[in-house]
This record gives sequence, structure tokens and C-alpha cells, in this order.
Amino acid sequence: MKGGSAVRPGRTVDVSVVALDDAARTPKHDAVVTEEPLEIRLAGAGKTQTLAVTMRTPGHDFELAAGFVFSEGIVASLERIGAITYCVDPAIEPDQRYNIVNVELTGPLPELARFERHFTVNSSCGVCGRAQLDSLRDLGVKPVDDEVRVSPETLYALPERMREAQRIFESTGGLHAAALFDENGTALAVREDVGRHNALDKLIGWGLMNAKLPFARTILLASGRASYEILQKSVMARIPIVASVSAPSSLAVDLAREFNVTLAGFLRNRRANVYTAAERIATA
Amino acid sequence: MKGGSAVRPGRTVDVSVVALDDAARTPKHDAVVTEEPLEIRLAGAGKTQTLAVTMRTPGHDFELAAGFVFSEGIVASLERIGAITYCVDPAIEPDQRYNIVNVELTGPLPELARFERHFTVNSSCGVCGRAQLDSLRDLGVKPVDDEVRVSPETLYALPERMREAQRIFESTGGLHAAALFDENGTALAVREDVGRHNALDKLIGWGLMNAKLPFARTILLASGRASYEILQKSVMARIPIVASVSAPSSLAVDLAREFNVTLAGFLRNRRANVYTAAERIATA
Repeated sequence: MKGGSAVRPGRTVDVSVVALDDAARTPKHDAVVTEEPLEIRLAGAGKTQTLAVTMRTPGHDFELAAGFVFSEGIVASLERIGAITYCVDPAIEPDQRYNIVNVELTGPLPELARFERHFTVNSSCGVCGRAQLDSLRDLGVKPVDDEVRVSPETLYALPERMREAQRIFESTGGLHAAALFDENGTALAVREDVGRHNALDKLIGWGLMNAKLPFARTILLASGRASYEILQKSVMARIPIVASVSAPSSLAVDLAREFNVTLAGFLRNRRANVYTAAERIATA
Repeated sequence: MKGGSAVRPGRTVDVSVVALDDAARTPKHDAVVTEEPLEIRLAGAGKTQTLAVTMRTPGHDFELAAGFVFSEGIVASLERIGAITYCVDPAIEPDQRYNIVNVELTGPLPELARFERHFTVNSSCGVCGRAQLDSLRDLGVKPVDDEVRVSPETLYALPERMREAQRIFESTGGLHAAALFDENGTALAVREDVGRHNALDKLIGWGLMNAKLPFARTILLASGRASYEILQKSVMARIPIVASVSAPSSLAVDLAREFNVTLAGFLRNRRANVYTAAERIATA
């Protein structure tokens, strides 16, 4: 591993590339989006344990950790969190110190047996699909009964508004975004990451840390496809309308239907498909 | 959970949608890509353990399981695998029977301590980034020394050839693809999934089950961005050239450089950026 001092990683890294353009071949520099592991540790009453390791883009790491523990149902309110800190333990290799975040609880560690797996890995795996679907019910999560109504015009305007709110996206082309809007289509917050689910956790962590949860009367716009995981986290944050510029998955549609979330896909060029709870998209 | 008989899930599910088009609002039917959990179990010498749960699109499940155990370094050759079967145990709920695959080894279970995590979750999390990078080294994985040379013309033709080789993609808009080509740009195999890493594992499993590994003198084209995980699996399969239509991440570039893989990004419209080992892209 690299040595050196503990430097917080940036959101992009400069690399040399050979640019091919038809028959031409030109050396140049390019910025690629940073992907680094973030280990989220949970600490309470003298005990610490690793909760998750996620590949993320550095930035808003505390929000990511806060959003993760909230959206996974481990912490139900900000009062349960005493502090969130980087693990700058001298025993940790300098270049990894900003890749570990400790979430210190105000009380003892919760029972985590339901999260136990021998070896759960890999993308798009929010613990265990159908089992997790049941676990949302086990947590006592209710359908979203938000009665907000949003016009198609408001919906159609969101992709452009998200692009306006992003700056880094254009420069690297490698980031997913999650943007939260109010019912009039005004952007409330935008977060970005190499992982869609991380961008959403950052957004939810922002809400938790700023007393904006539940996200009543809001619209989420997620880049890329709407997967099970995106819907699961949206339900936890009580977002009534979830829109994506791309396709949803079957399990995302199932979850949206069960928890009464309005799910819109293929939102582009003044078009969209509304898969569930279409009554919230109301023509004026 | 739904009851009913054990039906193998299809690759798409028909759903009702409300199609919004400017001011019009039309009910219609649409196909969404199936996302279901697949639990991969490892069995050997009378013991069984859950290895991973991944959200995947049904289809080529045995290849996915085989590719996963190979690309994660658990099984080094086909001889180690006695059988791959669905878990049609009557104790399993009918609609979940085709969501569990048993990989039966010819000998005892390997030591899996290095995969142990309390709770490792979430997308794009191939165990633990930097630690995993070290673990590729720990496995004794060497740089890819393949001396294949490919012309820019061959590279430029790949996206269109992958599209030709896909059928389902057009109908749902919701799938990632991984396609393997020979050095002349002839498609050898294409696999699709809601998860990029699953599409690649299916491809690698196809190679393992058909004695085509290592993938010498080949080119991989992956839809979506090239992440750490895509490169890690490519290195295990010894793919010398990895191309993506989108951006790579910093860790993908690092890994490609360390293991001498040619990594090309933004491959479209007769252009590409070559981040590493550019000498394999040779102008004739």
C-alpha cells in the first residue's frame, strides 16, 4: 500500500490517457471519478463493529454513513447518534484513514442479527431481496400515505434541473446523482457518487443531519435505473414520488406498489412511464 | 410471500403503466426487467454455507454461480465443481426455489475466513476495495502478459456488435451487458443482467463451464461504467483488453495499471480514451 500522510481523497483523480479519435492518437490528461472503499463502523457502549464496506466517491462521507444507518433501519432518529468521525487512529495506514467512518451511538449497539450473513457481497445487493422486503414489514414500515400532487410539467422539468444542480458530473461523466425536489420542482439537495445507492444514502443522511426527515411532499430523481435498493431506501425516507431517467426493475415496481410510492421511469423529452400510484401525477 | 408452484422466473415481467407524453395520459402495458435475489450456496463434504446473495436477472444462473466462485478466487478450476443445482428443497417456499443455487464442490469447503465480514452490503462492494486489491496479490494473481494487438477499427466496431448480439436490451431498456470478443472483433458470448458485475460473472461462468478460460487474446465490452469490480473480475479471467462505453473509476484505472490490463473508456462514435497498456491498441 502507499505510505505518506493522511490526505483526504478528492472527488476526481487526474490520469494520463491516450485519446483515440478515428485514426488520430493523442496523449492527454483526463479526470476520472474517485472510487474508494468506505468502511462504516458502529460504536456504542465500548464496542465497535464493522457494519458495511461500500465503494464510494469521497465527499459527504458523514452523510453517507448517517444515511446508511438510517435507511437500513439501524438508527431511527438523530438522537441515537452521538458523533460521526473519521477513524484517524495512528494504527490505520495513512491513506486509509479517511476511508473509515465511525458512527458513535448514544447507547449500546443494536441487535444486528438480522443483518448477519456469512458472506454477502456485490452490487445491488441490499442484504437479501425478498427477505429484506419482508424485513421492511418486520420493521413496521407502513405504506407512504403522502397526498401530494405534482403536475406532469413539474416532473418533466426535473432532469434539466438536476443537471443544473450538478457540476462535477459534466467534468467526469462517471457519477450517479440523486436529487430531492419539493412539490413545485425546486431542488432541495443533490448528491453524487459512483454508486446510485450511495448518492441516495448521502441525500438521506443530509436529511437526517438537518432534521428534514421524513421527506414529505418531495420528489426524488435518480440517475440510472430504479432498482430494488433505491426503492427500499426511498420508502425508509418516506419519499412519495421516485423518478428515474431510465428503467425500473420488477422488484422496484413490486416494492413501490406495496408501499404506495409513485414510481416514474424513462423520464425524458416530456415523457415518462408511471408504474405505480399514478394519482399523484395530476394534470392540472 | 406469494404461494403457488415453483415457476422459474422469466427475464422480464409485464406491468401496467400510465404513459405520460406531453399532456396525454395513456394506460398501457410494458415489460420491466426482472430483478430477483440469487443466493449462492457452497456445499462440500456434508457442509453447506451461504456464500453470497446478489440481485440478478434470472437466466444463466448456473453460469452466474460458477463465474462468481471463480472470479472471487474460491474455485480455481472446473474440476473443483461436482454439480450446480437449484435448491428445490420442499422446505423452501415455491417462489424462491429458483432463487437459490447450490455449488457442490468435489472436496471439502475452502477456508473462507478472508471473505468474512460482519455485514458487508451494497452495490459495487466487491468485499473491500483496497483490501481486496491486496487479496488479488495474496491469491498470487500475476499481471496479464497477453501480447495481443487490436486495431482501433476493431475497437470502434464493438458497441454496434454488442447491440446486434443483444435482443432483450431493446425491449426493456433495463439491462447491463458484458460481451466477449476475439481479437478480430467477433462476438464469442454476450450475457445480460440488471447488475454489470453479474453480467460479467455469467460470461466468466460460461467460460469456466466450456473450458474457455483463461480468456486469452480477447476483448471485453461492458455497458455502463468500468468500476473496480469489473476490473477485478476481468483480471481473474485474464482478459487483456477491457472496454466500456462510459467512464472508468479511479480504482479501476489503478487495478488495470497494476495488472497490465488495457482499459478503454468512452468507446463511442469512433472515439475512445485508453487509460492503461495502450500498446495493445495498435494502429495497423
